[in-house]
Amino acid sequence: MSLTTPALAGKLAGLQSSAIRDLLELTARDDIISLAGGLPDAALMPNERIAAAAETALRDSAVLQYTESSGWPALREVIAARESAKIGRAVSSAEVFITHGSQQALSLLAEVLLDPGALVIVEDPAYVGALQVFRAAGARIVAVPLDSEGMRLDILEDLLAAGERPAVVHTVSTFHNPGGVTLTPERRRRLAELAEAHGFWIIEDDPYGELWFDRPAPAPVASYSPQVIRLSSVSKILAPALRVGWLIAPENVCRAVELLKQGADLCGSSLTQQITTDLLCDTPWLTTHIDTIRTTYGTRARTLVTALRTTFGDRLHCTDPTGGMFLWAEFTDTTDTTTLLPTALDTGVAYVPGAAFAVTNTTPTTLRLCFTTSDEATLVEAVARLSKALRVSAGV
Amino acid sequence: MSLTTPALAGKLAGLQSSAIRDLLELTARDDIISLAGGLPDAALMPNERIAAAAETALRDSAVLQYTESSGWPALREVIAARESAKIGRAVSSAEVFITHGSQQALSLLAEVLLDPGALVIVEDPAYVGALQVFRAAGARIVAVPLDSEGMRLDILEDLLAAGERPAVVHTVSTFHNPGGVTLTPERRRRLAELAEAHGFWIIEDDPYGELWFDRPAPAPVASYSPQVIRLSSVSKILAPALRVGWLIAPENVCRAVELLKQGADLCGSSLTQQITTDLLCDTPWLTTHIDTIRTTYGTRARTLVTALRTTFGDRLHCTDPTGGMFLWAEFTDTTDTTTLLPTALDTGVAYVPGAAFAVTNTTPTTLRLCFTTSDEATLVEAVARLSKALRVSAGV
Repeated sequence: MSLTTPALAGKLAGLQSSAIRDLLELTARDDIISLAGGLPDAALMPNERIAAAAETALRDSAVLQYTESSGWPALREVIAARESAKIGRAVSSAEVFITHGSQQALSLLAEVLLDPGALVIVEDPAYVGALQVFRAAGARIVAVPLDSEGMRLDILEDLLAAGERPAVVHTVSTFHNPGGVTLTPERRRRLAELAEAHGFWIIEDDPYGELWFDRPAPAPVASYSPQVIRLSSVSKILAPALRVGWLIAPENVCRAVELLKQGADLCGSSLTQQITTDLLCDTPWLTTHIDTIRTTYGTRARTLVTALRTTFGDRLHCTDPTGGMFLWAEFTDTTDTTTLLPTALDTGVAYVPGAAFAVTNTTPTTLRLCFTTSDEATLVEAVARLSKALRVSAGV
Repeated sequence: MSLTTPALAGKLAGLQSSAIRDLLELTARDDIISLAGGLPDAALMPNERIAAAAETALRDSAVLQYTESSGWPALREVIAARESAKIGRAVSSAEVFITHGSQQALSLLAEVLLDPGALVIVEDPAYVGALQVFRAAGARIVAVPLDSEGMRLDILEDLLAAGERPAVVHTVSTFHNPGGVTLTPERRRRLAELAEAHGFWIIEDDPYGELWFDRPAPAPVASYSPQVIRLSSVSKILAPALRVGWLIAPENVCRAVELLKQGADLCGSSLTQQITTDLLCDTPWLTTHIDTIRTTYGTRARTLVTALRTTFGDRLHCTDPTGGMFLWAEFTDTTDTTTLLPTALDTGVAYVPGAAFAVTNTTPTTLRLCFTTSDEATLVEAVARLSKALRVSAGV
């Protein structure tokens, strides 16, 4: 019936789906507690506040028309003001470009900044959505491992000393997905210095920065250099369905992104962008709203860490989440988390094996756990099921 | 301050903005009647109905979460039902892929179907958004002129006979933008036969098909062959800000598009997709709503045609719009519409010179007029100003 041209066959063979997405389809079963997802908790999303903002926005017929490719002007202004406060310099709205989630910022930037074969440095483990984009752009990808202080800059410096010349260094600087760690202020400053010394762009991908638990995240890498393009979105603090992300970049970069956005999808939604503007401008409400998310996720993170340490002791090391949505863990014995997964699903718990995020350094004993969408009792039960899976797998 | 890498400089130099977009910025002045735009009339958009749908949708927290890359399942089902009725065969929801407007359908399809250097046949004059996408994909573009019955298939057949092997033939089959014409049923059937005989895809880009004035548009090209990928959207019948478009294609094409959509922007907005579902399912309301648009645009089109013919007589030939948003006109003397434009702007009227849509066949005497956003008196005044511009330009 259907025509399979050589081009289409090639694309189908060459494209890789996200392993995590495929796994998520398996874990949608009601009897499985899934710590495998990467979603914010829908129960914490502000449905009523968004409905009120929609009702107000829709009194103006302009809100249903096409809008500028660069975004709804009022939204660009409020983002400029918020980013100015974060970065510590005046960001103009001409440096703000609104995208369809920060994933679109990443994919348009890859087209703008990379020629085929250009070198991109990523973190290991890496954000899978970034890998997908950089691979599609035909980049050569080299990974630098994380430690508890974020990207290992000593290894990056070795690469630079050996003559590697990256076009882009991509970092999820704060509350890393999947690694759970945050780049220290010292390393932020040093990374910015390296960018200026060696002429590369830093893409600072920061969707989680506002989700800190006890104290605010360090100042962005972008506060140390104009060679940093910052990405963020409202998906984790308001709602993914608004599909509002952005990039903060010099005007010439924004201009190139604009030309690509016209071809990609013309423009974003003035309706969801006006709703977002309304919510971001309502500071008292927003502060309380984000505080609730922080408190809830913080409590869940601590519950999960405590349950893991109580249950597994020295057999499992895990990060101490200070924000974000993820915990990274590593079995200290020979437990292979990919091999264990079918047994874990049988006992009713899902996680993502660390191998799914590996670029070069595949450690088979690691795993990512998401603590955002389960309440405390469920998280404790999930750890009990994981423990059972280990016993079943050992034949005990 | 900012880093200009060779890659960025190359992209900026290589990317072309849409000439129409740049012109629209000039014509936003209050004292200019713009027939240059390509926007539906915001005053006809259903603000209140959308507010009601938003309020209902937001009672469910799932509507604010990430959704599937292929689209909100309920929306895919209602589109499948509507397209089944149009195409005259059962379209399954697996053949429906929701995109961020039909422009995104076009850009993702170009990536899926085209290798660099592949031949794409377009119409002349052409939809500029398609040209942008096919050029970005590195395609070789050959244009086939339109006549009053749509694409000149005799010329397409000559190209095929000469050994040209297109990967894709792109057609705005119904109420062409900018050409105003509709491909006849006989040519639809023949174009589908050619696709099957020569193994190319047809992309039938159909955003205007529901905007007929006196009688429904002919059955889609897709009703004649499964080698037709159909594109449409709700931008012209509901509102552009919903950012809901779609493609109807065989499942293997949808699967390849899905993998690209994940990297491009993860997914669409479940909120605007659920609002769209609600409106499309409300058949009595929708029928009345679209009838109002048809009647309004039809009256405006007739008013514009009458004013042009009364004012210019044989000096100007124009299409007789039977639907859509545009009228295509051609001066029968030597009037150059690009040269005339600054004078027209001075007298307070804007249009788009035909040259902006030309691929190879640049006729300097043509122009596109959009009749959707001006009322009848304004359209009459616009023609009077155009007449004045001609007199000023002739030094009369």
